[in-house]
Amino acid sequence: MTYCVGILVDDGLVFASDCRTNAGVDHVASFRKLFTFVERGERAMTLLTSGNLAITQSVESLLRRAIEVDDKARSLFRAPTMFDATRMVGRVLREVHDYDANYLRALETEFVAGLILGGQIRGERPRLFQIYAAGNFIEASRQTPYFQIGEVKYGKPVIDRMIRPETDLTTAAKCALISFDSTMRSNISVGLPIDLAIIRKDAFAISRQVRILDGDPYFALLQRRWSEGLAGVFREIPDPDWDAD
Amino acid sequence: MTYCVGILVDDGLVFASDCRTNAGVDHVASFRKLFTFVERGERAMTLLTSGNLAITQSVESLLRRAIEVDDKARSLFRAPTMFDATRMVGRVLREVHDYDANYLRALETEFVAGLILGGQIRGERPRLFQIYAAGNFIEASRQTPYFQIGEVKYGKPVIDRMIRPETDLTTAAKCALISFDSTMRSNISVGLPIDLAIIRKDAFAISRQVRILDGDPYFALLQRRWSEGLAGVFREIPDPDWDAD
Repeated sequence: MTYCVGILVDDGLVFASDCRTNAGVDHVASFRKLFTFVERGERAMTLLTSGNLAITQSVESLLRRAIEVDDKARSLFRAPTMFDATRMVGRVLREVHDYDANYLRALETEFVAGLILGGQIRGERPRLFQIYAAGNFIEASRQTPYFQIGEVKYGKPVIDRMIRPETDLTTAAKCALISFDSTMRSNISVGLPIDLAIIRKDAFAISRQVRILDGDPYFALLQRRWSEGLAGVFREIPDPDWDAD
Repeated sequence: MTYCVGILVDDGLVFASDCRTNAGVDHVASFRKLFTFVERGERAMTLLTSGNLAITQSVESLLRRAIEVDDKARSLFRAPTMFDATRMVGRVLREVHDYDANYLRALETEFVAGLILGGQIRGERPRLFQIYAAGNFIEASRQTPYFQIGEVKYGKPVIDRMIRPETDLTTAAKCALISFDSTMRSNISVGLPIDLAIIRKDAFAISRQVRILDGDPYFALLQRRWSEGLAGVFREIPDPDWDAD
């Protein structure tokens, strides 16, 4: 299973993903699902991936090669806007579909892929997109300033409660980590390490990228404080006056 | 959509359900999904239902009729143990399957039903079961002291954090309501009113049954205190030392 979240606030973008993949409970492995594309001073993007690992790795490889060979239709460094960049990712995903889907279908395997692409290109504000398996996509807004893919439900309430466009980047990163904590507590197939990347507005660079490993002291502190804090708030809510006889 | 939860603690059982049904977003209605069966002084049970309303209403009607006609194989008042009572519910569900499933299949409609049955019969401890659409079932334990049906994920983390076998009934009810708050915030198709029932150990009665309507002052207080409390705990967790440049 996978959990990834991308958050858009006024100050920029926060991305986080777990690194666990499983093809059955007896085949668990660790793979990167967060990828960065940076043309320093000009553009910075992060791609989050979920679904069939063979599909999403192909997408990333083809996007890297398109940059290397300066393919005008597919290189993220050639996209004039984030909308165009997202279309490129969708186009590459459709090419993988054309190449793989019939053979997957023959083995009764669905073509499953979900992507989040966010970033900023000089001349635009930071933007965030969710790309579906069909290669079509939607864009985040001030009303809905985040996207999740994979095991999305356990970690959604805390984001709904805490994230506003005015939220600063560090607070948004903290919220993303709590969202991971909730998810990992309820679904053991989502696990550490967590990859986290921050793109500050107008930096045109990855402002911060960290990998949170098992035993990370900050993450352990955050987990403990959140858990104890929730228990405290819960205790302090008065009992109902209709309590049991 | 539906959300129901049944919780088993040392002191007894707590049940809660929403009342909203929808067959498409343009067909939303309110129906009871929590049903009680009480032979005072001898046994008290609560049934929670999710899935196709035509199926689950049939199950409840057939169970009521079986009690009225004193059907030895199906009357919950004839069951010597909660295991036997749960088998009866599964049997009735299978009879509805035999009656309806082919016609549903002809219209490409799945036979969808999920039930939770809990209660206590004199001579036994309180017990809690989850019954699947196939009429088979599992029983809760001290390790896994609750079952959920319907829209289960948003409201699961708080139950995982707060419920232990030693939790008292009033606290368990409070936890169930917070679990509903989380679910209703993230899925608008789960909504008030909430039906809540408590069966205290060795009461052999429904110790408390309440319907929480829109504007209920206690539920409003609980929502506000939980929301403000979480925001406070979140604020007080220190920022990571790797905050963005």
